Amino acid sequence: MRKIYFTPGPAELFPTVEKHYQEAFELQLGSISHRSQLFRDIYKHTAEQLRILMIIPETHGIFFTGSATEIWERLIQNTVEHESFHLVNGSFSKKFFDFSIELNKYAHKMEKPFGEGFDNSEIIVPEYAELICATANETSSGVQMRPAEIHKLKRANRDKFVCVDMVSSAPYPDLDFNTVDSAMFSVQKSFGMPAGLGCWIVNPAMLEKAERMKTHENHIGTYHNLPSLFKNFAKYETPETPNVMAIYVLGKVAEDMNNIGIDTIRKQTEKKAKMLYDFADKSDFLDVFVKNPEHRSQTVVVVNVKEKFAANVIKQVQNDVNMVIGSGYGDFKDTQLRIANFPAVSLGQVEKLIEALKKV
Amino acid sequence: MRKIYFTPGPAELFPTVEKHYQEAFELQLGSISHRSQLFRDIYKHTAEQLRILMIIPETHGIFFTGSATEIWERLIQNTVEHESFHLVNGSFSKKFFDFSIELNKYAHKMEKPFGEGFDNSEIIVPEYAELICATANETSSGVQMRPAEIHKLKRANRDKFVCVDMVSSAPYPDLDFNTVDSAMFSVQKSFGMPAGLGCWIVNPAMLEKAERMKTHENHIGTYHNLPSLFKNFAKYETPETPNVMAIYVLGKVAEDMNNIGIDTIRKQTEKKAKMLYDFADKSDFLDVFVKNPEHRSQTVVVVNVKEKFAANVIKQVQNDVNMVIGSGYGDFKDTQLRIANFPAVSLGQVEKLIEALKKV
Repeated sequence: MRKIYFTPGPAELFPTVEKHYQEAFELQLGSISHRSQLFRDIYKHTAEQLRILMIIPETHGIFFTGSATEIWERLIQNTVEHESFHLVNGSFSKKFFDFSIELNKYAHKMEKPFGEGFDNSEIIVPEYAELICATANETSSGVQMRPAEIHKLKRANRDKFVCVDMVSSAPYPDLDFNTVDSAMFSVQKSFGMPAGLGCWIVNPAMLEKAERMKTHENHIGTYHNLPSLFKNFAKYETPETPNVMAIYVLGKVAEDMNNIGIDTIRKQTEKKAKMLYDFADKSDFLDVFVKNPEHRSQTVVVVNVKEKFAANVIKQVQNDVNMVIGSGYGDFKDTQLRIANFPAVSLGQVEKLIEALKKV
Repeated sequence: MRKIYFTPGPAELFPTVEKHYQEAFELQLGSISHRSQLFRDIYKHTAEQLRILMIIPETHGIFFTGSATEIWERLIQNTVEHESFHLVNGSFSKKFFDFSIELNKYAHKMEKPFGEGFDNSEIIVPEYAELICATANETSSGVQMRPAEIHKLKRANRDKFVCVDMVSSAPYPDLDFNTVDSAMFSVQKSFGMPAGLGCWIVNPAMLEKAERMKTHENHIGTYHNLPSLFKNFAKYETPETPNVMAIYVLGKVAEDMNNIGIDTIRKQTEKKAKMLYDFADKSDFLDVFVKNPEHRSQTVVVVNVKEKFAANVIKQVQNDVNMVIGSGYGDFKDTQLRIANFPAVSLGQVEKLIEALKKV
C-alpha cells in the first residue's frame, strides 16, 4: 500500500502527477527535440499557467534550472556586484547567505534565532546592499515572512532588488510581482512533483543589471546567466536540453490548480494549517514551535515533541496509518516534527493524521 | 501509434525506461528524502552499475547535475585557473570553448572544418594550458575522436588534465579512466532516457586542483564545485535535492546494459553503423559526410542529401514507417541528415529505416 507523505520536500505527489507523467510518455515527450515547435508550445503553456496562478506580469521571465539551489547561485552571480543582504532565520536562509560569501561577495545578514520571523519595521538594510534576500517560508523552522511585510520591505528600499525564496510555499504566498523583483521555487514541495526542476521568476530590471555586470567582466556565468535565459525565453526555448517532461507536468499541475482556483487552494491550506496548529496547541505531548502566530508557516507546520522521541512518534504514525511525517531539521531532529501542509494532502488526510497523532 | 526516434538527442527511449519510471512511481521515489538511506542506496547502485559498465575506478567521483552543459561550466570553473585548450570541430566543441572565454579564461583552440576529426599526432598543445578538452563524439557533425587517440594525447601531456565530452556516445567509447581525468555525458542520448540529468566522472587530481583554486579565491562556484560534490558523494548524497527518479532509472538502464554486456552493445553499435554507412555509400541520393572512415561517428551517422531537400526525406520516412530522423545541424539543416545509432534502436529497426530510405 502506498504511503501518504507529510514530509516537507520531497513530498506527497499532487494527485494528478503520475497521470500527467504517463501522458508525457504516451506523447513521447522524452524523445522530442527541445528546439521543436512542440517543445515551445509546452514551455509557453507552462509559463502561461504559472502567470495565471501566481499573477506574474508578461514582462517577467520564467526560467527553468536543475534546482532552486542553482537559482540561489545564479541570482547572486547575476545581480550582485559587491554586496548582498540576507534575512537569516534557519538553515536554508543561512545557506543562501553562505553562497554569497562563497561567490566572493560582501554578504551582510540580519539573523534571528531558529523559530523567529521578520517584520519590515525591525529590518535595517545596509546602505550599499544591492540585493535583499527574503524567505517566504523557512523550511527548516516553519517560519513564514508574510507577503505584506515583504512588499513593505521593497517599498522602503526601492533602489535595491528584493528576491523571495518561495521554495516550500509557492504558489501559496500572495506575492505582488510588480513589487518584488524575483522569486524562486522548486517543484518537489507545494507543486507535489518529483524533484529535478527549479523555477525562477525574474523582472527585466535584473536583466539590465546582469548585462551591465557582464560588460564589466563580472562572473555572471555562461548558459544560465540572465542574458542567455531571457534571450532563449523570448522564443520559449532553453539554453540547454532541459527536463522537458517536468516542464510539461508542471504546466499541467499549474493548470489543475487554476481549475481548482488559487483562492480555494489558499483557503484550504489555511484551514488545514489551523487544524494542525489547534491540535498541537491542545495536545499533551506537542507544542507549536513558532510562538508568534503571524510568523507561523501555513505550508510547513513545526511542532515540539515533549516527553517522547520524535522518531518514535514518526514510527508509530507510519505503522498505524501509513503516513510519513518529517523529523525536525538538523539539531532539532529528535525534538521536533515537521508536517508539510501542501496542496497534495487533503483535508480528510490531515484529519486522519491528527486522529493518529491523538493515539500516540 | 508511437514513433521511432532516430534523432540524436533527445532520442528514442531505451526499451526498459518507461517500465523503470513506472516502478519508480510505485516505489514513491518522487516523495522520498534525498537524505534517506533509501536514496543513498539508489545513488550507490547507479554509481556501481556505471563503474561496471564504463570501468570507472573506485577513486573517481560520479556526480549528477542538471545537464551536461552545466558540467562544461563546472569543469572549467573548477580546474582552469588561467588557460584551457579545446579541440573544436563542430557546434558543441565550439560552445565548450566559448564557455571558457565567458568565464574569463584564456581559451586556446585548434579548429578543424565541420566534418573533420583529430588525431593526436597533429595536435600542438599550448604550453600553459591546464585543461585539454576533447570530444569523443561531435553531435553536430558526426565526427568521433577515437579513444586510442585521446589516450595518446593524455600520455603526451601528463602535466595537463584531459577531459572528454562523451555526451552523445557514452557508454560506447572504450575510454581508459586511469588515463583521462574526466568525462561527462547526458542521459537523453545513448542511455535513452528523458532529459534532465547530466553525469560527471572526475578523478581525485581534479579535486586537489579545485581545492587549491578555492583557497586562492578563484570562482569555483558553490554547491556544485568539486569539493562539495566529492564531500557529498562520500556518503552517496548530493549537495541539493537532485533528480532522484532519473538517478534511479539511470542505474536500472546501466544494469540492463550490463546484463546485455558492453561488448555486445559495442558490437551491435558498430554493426548498425556499418549498415547505415554502407547504405549511404551505395545510395544515389546520399553521401557519407565524414570522409575519413576512422573519424566517422559510430553513434551519430551524418549523411549529405543530394538533389533533394533533407526536410522532404525526413517527412517521407515519417509518413511511410513512422520513424523520425534528425536534420543537419545549423547551416546544414537543408542538406544533411543526422541518424542517431544509439542502443535504444534495434538492428531490425535500422534495417526498416534503410528500406524506407531506399524508397525515397
